[in-house]
Amino acid sequence: MEVFGDNSFSSPCNTLGFLQKNNSLDEKGRLAGHKNLLSCDNSGRESWFRRTETDFSNLYARDLLPAKNGEEATMQFLLEVVDILTNYVKKTFDRSTKVLDFHHPHQLLEGMEGFNLELSDQPESLEQILVDCRDTLKYGVRTGHPRFFNQLSSGLDIIGLAGEWLTSTANTNMFTYEIAPVFVLMEQLTLKKMREMIGWPAGEGDGLFSPGGAISNMYSVMIARYKYFPEVKTKGMSAAPRLVLFTSEHQMFSPFVFYFSSDHYSIKKAGAALGFGTDNVILLSTDERGRVIPADLEAKILDVKQKGYVPLFVNATAGSTVYGAFDPINEIADICEKYNLWLHVDGAWGGGLLMSRKHRHKLNGVERANSVTWNPHKMMGVPLQCSAILVREKGILAGCNSMCAGYLFQPDKQYDVTYDTGDKAIQCGRHVDIFKFWLMWKAKGTIGFEQHIDKCLDLSQYLYNKINNREGFQMVFDGVPQHTNVCFWYIPPSLRGMSDSEERREKLHRVAPKIKAMMMESGTTMVGYQPQGNKVNFFRMVVSNAAVTQSDIDFLVDEIERLGQDL
Amino acid sequence: MEVFGDNSFSSPCNTLGFLQKNNSLDEKGRLAGHKNLLSCDNSGRESWFRRTETDFSNLYARDLLPAKNGEEATMQFLLEVVDILTNYVKKTFDRSTKVLDFHHPHQLLEGMEGFNLELSDQPESLEQILVDCRDTLKYGVRTGHPRFFNQLSSGLDIIGLAGEWLTSTANTNMFTYEIAPVFVLMEQLTLKKMREMIGWPAGEGDGLFSPGGAISNMYSVMIARYKYFPEVKTKGMSAAPRLVLFTSEHQMFSPFVFYFSSDHYSIKKAGAALGFGTDNVILLSTDERGRVIPADLEAKILDVKQKGYVPLFVNATAGSTVYGAFDPINEIADICEKYNLWLHVDGAWGGGLLMSRKHRHKLNGVERANSVTWNPHKMMGVPLQCSAILVREKGILAGCNSMCAGYLFQPDKQYDVTYDTGDKAIQCGRHVDIFKFWLMWKAKGTIGFEQHIDKCLDLSQYLYNKINNREGFQMVFDGVPQHTNVCFWYIPPSLRGMSDSEERREKLHRVAPKIKAMMMESGTTMVGYQPQGNKVNFFRMVVSNAAVTQSDIDFLVDEIERLGQDL
Repeated sequence: MEVFGDNSFSSPCNTLGFLQKNNSLDEKGRLAGHKNLLSCDNSGRESWFRRTETDFSNLYARDLLPAKNGEEATMQFLLEVVDILTNYVKKTFDRSTKVLDFHHPHQLLEGMEGFNLELSDQPESLEQILVDCRDTLKYGVRTGHPRFFNQLSSGLDIIGLAGEWLTSTANTNMFTYEIAPVFVLMEQLTLKKMREMIGWPAGEGDGLFSPGGAISNMYSVMIARYKYFPEVKTKGMSAAPRLVLFTSEHQMFSPFVFYFSSDHYSIKKAGAALGFGTDNVILLSTDERGRVIPADLEAKILDVKQKGYVPLFVNATAGSTVYGAFDPINEIADICEKYNLWLHVDGAWGGGLLMSRKHRHKLNGVERANSVTWNPHKMMGVPLQCSAILVREKGILAGCNSMCAGYLFQPDKQYDVTYDTGDKAIQCGRHVDIFKFWLMWKAKGTIGFEQHIDKCLDLSQYLYNKINNREGFQMVFDGVPQHTNVCFWYIPPSLRGMSDSEERREKLHRVAPKIKAMMMESGTTMVGYQPQGNKVNFFRMVVSNAAVTQSDIDFLVDEIERLGQDL
Repeated sequence: MEVFGDNSFSSPCNTLGFLQKNNSLDEKGRLAGHKNLLSCDNSGRESWFRRTETDFSNLYARDLLPAKNGEEATMQFLLEVVDILTNYVKKTFDRSTKVLDFHHPHQLLEGMEGFNLELSDQPESLEQILVDCRDTLKYGVRTGHPRFFNQLSSGLDIIGLAGEWLTSTANTNMFTYEIAPVFVLMEQLTLKKMREMIGWPAGEGDGLFSPGGAISNMYSVMIARYKYFPEVKTKGMSAAPRLVLFTSEHQMFSPFVFYFSSDHYSIKKAGAALGFGTDNVILLSTDERGRVIPADLEAKILDVKQKGYVPLFVNATAGSTVYGAFDPINEIADICEKYNLWLHVDGAWGGGLLMSRKHRHKLNGVERANSVTWNPHKMMGVPLQCSAILVREKGILAGCNSMCAGYLFQPDKQYDVTYDTGDKAIQCGRHVDIFKFWLMWKAKGTIGFEQHIDKCLDLSQYLYNKINNREGFQMVFDGVPQHTNVCFWYIPPSLRGMSDSEERREKLHRVAPKIKAMMMESGTTMVGYQPQGNKVNFFRMVVSNAAVTQSDIDFLVDEIERLGQDL
């Protein structure tokens, strides 16, 4: 017996294959349904995999490689997994499937139709493992679905996916050239390209891929501290005066925001972790579009200095999480130069725009930064995780994090150990995040990323134009958004006649959460919401998925109206 | 045209398939060689994939999903990738293939046989992308090969691999239950199982999977600081007295060691990053087996207190990187209780032994720790990355890292938001590291991990017995190793007659690096070496790969003798 089941998309005798337009979440992908497939033959255009009589119910992990004679079972098993995954990929792009099949934690914990999350002492059969794989995908969220707008990271890039599959098969780490020669060089070349796009002369400098934007931003703070107060490395923070960090108030909004992205809190989190204290992370006022007001920065620097503290570091956000705002980097850089502060640009979300000749002007001045965070896993559609910290000054990254006195003691390796990256990182072992990105860049070219970014920004403008003057919709701020973020309220008919009052505000505050809950229950689409300052809950729409078309934007608007009309 | 080439392992008319026992590194997997395969038919037992006339030389990333009508090309492309990967998997376990095909950085940068690492503005064809995938694997290191002994992490677990492929296809992050419902619950249940194995009552406590042992250890220091000096979070390190951390001198050896693992420097790195300063990381003396001497800890605590500093945190290492030493946790715990210090157990390498009824006694006392690091990606063979930080006290992880005042302001999500993990982490976005581990646990059962661990330790004892009294080999320390680490010198015949002298020491110091370089050039096996204290370079052998047999141990010993006999 074999376990193809209704994930066997390509079998000519499988009537439940991918061509079926029923909602995939209605499938009953249980073992019982598989037996009638045994008689399928192997011919026909739709048959990818050879059918064998593999009975996975009698096979276990111990029967796979490296077990003796385990090769056949291993290949059969991996191909079954690939069958499940390629089906998932297809359904991801199929608008007739749901984005998610929502269940509450207690429901999943109780076990959905036999999907048992508990671990036990005894092994399960490979048949059960394959069922577990299907169920895991079934009850998850299709982040690559064209109608998933919930996160800054979305989409399912096929080249990136292939890159990830290869990365996990290679199963190595970035610690040394010795065990990751190709990946280490790919990282080096790719970081250089990124530095060239930032505009640093000849792409000189340094950098690393780190496990996300928050860690990349943490690196920037550590390096700044090391640059100005290197003795902190050995003596601790008591060796330095009271140091102050500055970042936009739009990095940290209300507690709701942390549901949306990895960055807002990052400078504050870094301040707490690295021993500065969150009180010494000073928030900068922003204009109505969420951009830092340079005069406010200068005033706060002066205030801090007057108190006898030392201003150290300014974070300029290039693409804030909620508004998509780009701080005016050049004006901030002028102030940093004047007062000798480290300038970091958090381009986790907006860095991708450097790839677009049309939009890169929004980061004008980024070449004056001392360090830059740029997450290809956000706007550029690279699979998670892929975040770079880029540093203008060469050598300082190793100086900051190295725990040994240079490379004096390693003359006995036969290769040039300056290619070893382990000592630059706060991690030592480091996941290979580069390959998928390198492969995507190869496959698309810089021009492919540019087209992707331009298209996403066009779609956001389409949404903006569509709802800007539409009845029942109200923009949170005026003007065309700088990034793909479009922030708006949906005003149900019941509130449209009401004049502004506390009651109306309270009611409006509850609208977005209610619509979101209904969206998740129906599984048709997902979009984020949050309040901000004195603004009650509003929707934050973002586009970073290459699969999105105008029809999906239309769908979202219609769906919000459909779900919200009776609120 | 299609690109199966000599990676088309299973084609009946492909004479270069996987059954060929030639060294895979001799393959010329270039496009030119593929054309004669086009006439193959689809019949026969060995034909997995349907042959189509897909001409990848005219296809580009833009032709794949979500492109209109991109489904067929997408499936063909992914299956080609899978063909490449499954071949690699098979070869990984094939002892007739090399472990690596070593090239210097400049050679790879210059381009090996057309393998061009440079990125460009224009896209490459999918044909070229497939070639790049093959070349990336070809010039990499087979970390799953039965004769790769270079790192604490080795092996290629098929279930874990399937888990990683699924994880990258699901492409989500652990930030909220909302976008990773199944993975969040799997993490919760798995961490609870791990806490049960540690011995905390009812598995209570907290934890997270983090991007490696160094970050997990950093968490432990942060949490300890928050427990004793919570005001540091807001006010910075100046709000606390001078705080001192203690760890084994065997966490940080010489600069060579950082080539081997992610842990040695981790407490010192954490001390530097978090603002303690490396001067305030005090190293504890060890016995001849590399185990911390508890009396030395107590003496150093008293010394620190006398100076007016505050001892805060003790790291007990369970499985040191080089010697595989287990510090005496119970005796250290007594001292920590006496002086009210935080006890962390770094079981990155040795934590896996908790799975073995035979060996778990080496961690006796671990249940008294306040926090534990445990990397399933090391001894348990889980693919990289998979590292857990486990904390006995509930709530303190969120208390330490949360940037908002509890969950007061989130009454409007429709599910129980205590399942959201984002605010516990210093990262906000967090890679899904749990699924592969959960799936392996399901597939093997606790008992499967136990068997794996017991087998690896048996193999190490086999090596120990084999070389303990063998001419030309000398153990670095006496007695059966506690973990799978076996540390030894190979003494070439030319040095065997010499009495101990500076000259002999200098010559012996150069032996291991020379043998290692020859190993890498010949590609037959890989094993680590380093000096330690006043001990000149020695080999450190470790076993964590399920594919290793006694014959591989024999091979290593023979290979060292073969390569070193004329030195």
